[in-house]
Amino acid sequence: MGRKEKARITVDIYNRPYTIVGTESASHIRMVASLVDQKMRDIHEANQHLDTTKLAVLTAVNTMNDYLKLKEENAALKAKLKEEEN
Amino acid sequence: MGRKEKARITVDIYNRPYTIVGTESASHIRMVASLVDQKMRDIHEANQHLDTTKLAVLTAVNTMNDYLKLKEENAALKAKLKEEEN
Repeated sequence: MGRKEKARITVDIYNRPYTIVGTESASHIRMVASLVDQKMRDIHEANQHLDTTKLAVLTAVNTMNDYLKLKEENAALKAKLKEEEN
Repeated sequence: MGRKEKARITVDIYNRPYTIVGTESASHIRMVASLVDQKMRDIHEANQHLDTTKLAVLTAVNTMNDYLKLKEENAALKAKLKEEEN
């Protein structure tokens, strides 16, 4: 008890199986996988000549860009919150 | 004028060139690319048997997971800020 159990979940992303090991719930891992799968399909729709590796890398680039934007927004919210608390 | 220029930047990620088209600055795109490249190398270090496609997909999964965590934190900060404003 006390330690989170590590679960092994197998998910399909872009027609290949991936085993994900982590402390997240199976439903969370499935949601993350389905978002990545969908993003790969969207990028494929717009760029049908890309191979799967390039699709996956561009999906990672796209998600990293979204992550960094959110991180900036997050920092601004924290600063605003700190200001309001003073 | 007025409309953001779309720039084409070529970056190297995991030893392959990618042309990224977007309105972000070249330096921002290079930073995003280098973060993805680094994440792929980190995952490779821990799982040396993975092929490049699997590495890239797992990098996207990892980044999507970070993104969702930040999104939750962001929603909590917004709720707190709203509360403080009332």
